[in-house]
Amino acid sequence: MDVQRILDDIGTDMAARPDRGLAATYIPELAGIDPAQFGLAVALADGRVLTTGDADVSFSIQSVSKVFTLALALGRQGDGLWSRVGREPSGHAFNSILQLETEAGIPRNPFINAGALVVTDTILDGRAPKETLAELVQFVRAAADDDDLHIDADVARSEQAHGHRNTALAEFMAAHGNMRNPVEKTCGTYFHQCAIAMTCRQLALAGRFLMGAPDMPRLVSPARMRRVLALMMTCGHYDASGDFAFRVGLPGKSGVGGGILVIAPGRASIAVWSPGLNANGNSHLGSIAMEMLAARTGWSVFD
Amino acid sequence: MDVQRILDDIGTDMAARPDRGLAATYIPELAGIDPAQFGLAVALADGRVLTTGDADVSFSIQSVSKVFTLALALGRQGDGLWSRVGREPSGHAFNSILQLETEAGIPRNPFINAGALVVTDTILDGRAPKETLAELVQFVRAAADDDDLHIDADVARSEQAHGHRNTALAEFMAAHGNMRNPVEKTCGTYFHQCAIAMTCRQLALAGRFLMGAPDMPRLVSPARMRRVLALMMTCGHYDASGDFAFRVGLPGKSGVGGGILVIAPGRASIAVWSPGLNANGNSHLGSIAMEMLAARTGWSVFD
Amino acid sequence: MDVQRILDDIGTDMAARPDRGLAATYIPELAGIDPAQFGLAVALADGRVLTTGDADVSFSIQSVSKVFTLALALGRQGDGLWSRVGREPSGHAFNSILQLETEAGIPRNPFINAGALVVTDTILDGRAPKETLAELVQFVRAAADDDDLHIDADVARSEQAHGHRNTALAEFMAAHGNMRNPVEKTCGTYFHQCAIAMTCRQLALAGRFLMGAPDMPRLVSPARMRRVLALMMTCGHYDASGDFAFRVGLPGKSGVGGGILVIAPGRASIAVWSPGLNANGNSHLGSIAMEMLAARTGWSVFD
Amino acid sequence: MDVQRILDDIGTDMAARPDRGLAATYIPELAGIDPAQFGLAVALADGRVLTTGDADVSFSIQSVSKVFTLALALGRQGDGLWSRVGREPSGHAFNSILQLETEAGIPRNPFINAGALVVTDTILDGRAPKETLAELVQFVRAAADDDDLHIDADVARSEQAHGHRNTALAEFMAAHGNMRNPVEKTCGTYFHQCAIAMTCRQLALAGRFLMGAPDMPRLVSPARMRRVLALMMTCGHYDASGDFAFRVGLPGKSGVGGGILVIAPGRASIAVWSPGLNANGNSHLGSIAMEMLAARTGWSVFD
Repeated sequence: MDVQRILDDIGTDMAARPDRGLAATYIPELAGIDPAQFGLAVALADGRVLTTGDADVSFSIQSVSKVFTLALALGRQGDGLWSRVGREPSGHAFNSILQLETEAGIPRNPFINAGALVVTDTILDGRAPKETLAELVQFVRAAADDDDLHIDADVARSEQAHGHRNTALAEFMAAHGNMRNPVEKTCGTYFHQCAIAMTCRQLALAGRFLMGAPDMPRLVSPARMRRVLALMMTCGHYDASGDFAFRVGLPGKSGVGGGILVIAPGRASIAVWSPGLNANGNSHLGSIAMEMLAARTGWSVFD
Repeated sequence: MDVQRILDDIGTDMAARPDRGLAATYIPELAGIDPAQFGLAVALADGRVLTTGDADVSFSIQSVSKVFTLALALGRQGDGLWSRVGREPSGHAFNSILQLETEAGIPRNPFINAGALVVTDTILDGRAPKETLAELVQFVRAAADDDDLHIDADVARSEQAHGHRNTALAEFMAAHGNMRNPVEKTCGTYFHQCAIAMTCRQLALAGRFLMGAPDMPRLVSPARMRRVLALMMTCGHYDASGDFAFRVGLPGKSGVGGGILVIAPGRASIAVWSPGLNANGNSHLGSIAMEMLAARTGWSVFD
Repeated sequence: MDVQRILDDIGTDMAARPDRGLAATYIPELAGIDPAQFGLAVALADGRVLTTGDADVSFSIQSVSKVFTLALALGRQGDGLWSRVGREPSGHAFNSILQLETEAGIPRNPFINAGALVVTDTILDGRAPKETLAELVQFVRAAADDDDLHIDADVARSEQAHGHRNTALAEFMAAHGNMRNPVEKTCGTYFHQCAIAMTCRQLALAGRFLMGAPDMPRLVSPARMRRVLALMMTCGHYDASGDFAFRVGLPGKSGVGGGILVIAPGRASIAVWSPGLNANGNSHLGSIAMEMLAARTGWSVFD
Repeated sequence: MDVQRILDDIGTDMAARPDRGLAATYIPELAGIDPAQFGLAVALADGRVLTTGDADVSFSIQSVSKVFTLALALGRQGDGLWSRVGREPSGHAFNSILQLETEAGIPRNPFINAGALVVTDTILDGRAPKETLAELVQFVRAAADDDDLHIDADVARSEQAHGHRNTALAEFMAAHGNMRNPVEKTCGTYFHQCAIAMTCRQLALAGRFLMGAPDMPRLVSPARMRRVLALMMTCGHYDASGDFAFRVGLPGKSGVGGGILVIAPGRASIAVWSPGLNANGNSHLGSIAMEMLAARTGWSVFD
């Protein structure tokens, strides 16, 4: 199978599409990004990295960071994490507070905002946000085998300035005893983790630890890796996770910056990015590109 | 890999467990079933069928029937079905009516009760329930390659007598114009489809059309097959679907009779049954047995 | 105070208003009614009945009938009724099913549809619908001291034909054991009670038993009367009850046919009717007229 | 009518009751209060103030303060307030966040916590909390004609330390643009207003401006007074407002400190206090005492 050919075809197809979605507007740093951009990178089990389009342009990974913090938290805390956050699709929007009220401050899963705040609270663990963020960046650098990635300070500051909704989630969980650090520290750390900037190439490389192929970085145990993938499959696209599984058939995690990290177990770690979003808040072109890639490669886990 | 040995080990382990869950109690026909029973059957891609325990005891497949009616409905109606039912996990109980009110009578997915009623309404399509049920039974018989399976009339009658909740769902959808046949006809058909009785062996055989292996019955297209599996993965265990994906890593569909149909793509169609249920309404031993089977065989799609 | 003068002023003001709301459209019998009509009748404590506008035109009282069935049910069953229906504003739409799911099939109050179905189920009490409806019509005739009022058979038939939503509510409560008669009998009775046709004059007369003035029909005890009025104040206008209390300051019960029965304790029983509804489903002109009447008379209970 | 005799009878009855409810436990300052205490004060239209029991013991008025801040906010802002907060019973708990998510950050009414935070945000209006609180205390002192009432600093501090839930409500509304001051300022002001300490005698006197009797302090217009009373009737006891209207028939506002302010229009301003709460979070003995008082005096607005 000529994967590079498939990527090229997808790149050509994407470039020709007039509807590119709308970039997120809640912070100016995202609103100003040119929606014409599209990048795709595939890290294969044999070590090759293939790309098309703007695969070396840096973007804000936003909620894709939740995959890395979850891996870190499971390493620190093991299955104890699951007493503070569930493993079920929420059936509600990524930033919904409804279930926190009816379910005693325990978020449904680690990939909705409330759950990710709990995960961040876990890895913070009484330390300074700075120290925690340094560990996280170090983890992502080690995964990507690339020291040239960082947190975008402007984005982090802007997230903080527009962070009332996430702060509300954290305060609500604090009221239920499900925050162990001061709310402003946990939220501050969370706003910064979302502001990590990476290219598609870097992100695809960083995702290799979830591929389960030989010679890949081994940052979590195989059993834990499978479980992270299961959560990405059922919860990785918020309230459109079912549709992504239906169309693509691969575990993935999307971010509001337009990036999606997708894993084809044993085969590839894939990063796609295009800043325009669809109605569900996932990358418009990125979702279509992944559907094409899965169809052309036959990499669906259901195949 | 010696699959028979794995099955035997699982059978031995299950027999020794004191906690067997509680059989469903809403109809006497289910409440009276001995929870000591446990059966498991695996239809492999090479044509062999391996079993352990009570694999030849007939049980009520209940909601597992939703897989067969979905396949039938997609065949009749194609993607038009998706204008009447969604493809997302609901985040609510299998029989919840909440989202019907806030989402204009469109159920979240075809595997919760409301969605399955829409699917049944689709295949009913103006015909007599009897004719529709005959087609369904014929479909399942063809899939299992076994004419000796039928609808349990006592169970069907009892379902009907205790069917107020499902009737409420159907009436509510009728109020939103999402029922095309008279409510009593759709509900009557639904109550009968749930009352299909099968053994683990029969159910494993009937599930082979979703395996995607050569020489298996070809009742739906490969693309449609993958999509049914995706729905089973994200929605097949109601509000415990995420946990099943997390623990087992395979698409499955459970029923309140204690049966679960699980597909290992390309490898096996698996039916497990034990009538005692866990807190989520899924087979207690069946869920544990599937977790063991996936771990021992390495069949998780995330592996 | 010259109440007739006030009524005349209101009638003149209403006639001049261009915005008359929109008649209910869910059944043709209501949809076809001319929204230009407006009637108002006031039965005073001294025995006089004053009117303006179309006070002698018959209309469908719809949910105003819930006041009469509640009075009947309390007479039959006393405070036992309150184990099956609550006394709190629902905070949801008149036909919402949400709280039935989260509150075990017990409706919030007797004036939302679900609660009114329980009330009707109570007075049905194993009897034939016909017999029950005869008792109800007799009760209203006695209250109004007028034998010339009846159930509109066309409206009742049409309610039944479009009754899926109410049937869903009843089936859902039946699933929770909160229906004692067959659902079709309770619903059938309910559809007929809503179809009682009365004029403003008749309705104002029929409401006198809630005035608490001497020489008025005494159909319920004073303590019970106060409690029915309290429920009308907090729950009588569905999810706009707070606004009606805020603007008018009097207990009232509205119906989708455009009628409102309002009680000024010790002073008057008031019936207003205009078929055009506002966004909340209450009579547009009727609500405005009542606000004017309360302001001009100083009859607000908070004055 | 010998009101003093009625009060004495109520005091005697209350003293004999073994079940006194449970004091609020969320802050130590409330948890430690002796539930044996009971006080009742009635300020009559003729100027007399009658009392029984611990009517001169100071307690934390908590949510009763919402009546005073609402009056202040209406004075400052007029009906513009109603674009930021509704006038309907919520149908949910006093501290619920559910409707804020589904209703765009607009609280249902000014007497649930979210609504009261908006009201406080309105009167804060860019000023320092200290200045705003000074105005509020001055308002209450003027109403009570008593300069000897103050904010309990220990209670305020404790409210703040346990204020995550209220902060979550405020942050959530800030995310919807429905907070105009920094969240910490609005919340800080709110925590202090709840900590106002008053005796029953002082509170009854302070409530006279809502009586609508001649010679009473005139702090709001008669039209506004009626509207505040209507809101107290439909929303003053959170999710037990319907029951209070049903049992007592008078507008009231309760607080978690065990106090209730009740107005009998034209007749009396009544303050009752007993720190033990019932299941709905309202004073247990206070609610019973008010039911007795209304029954004995015939002061129900529905009488």
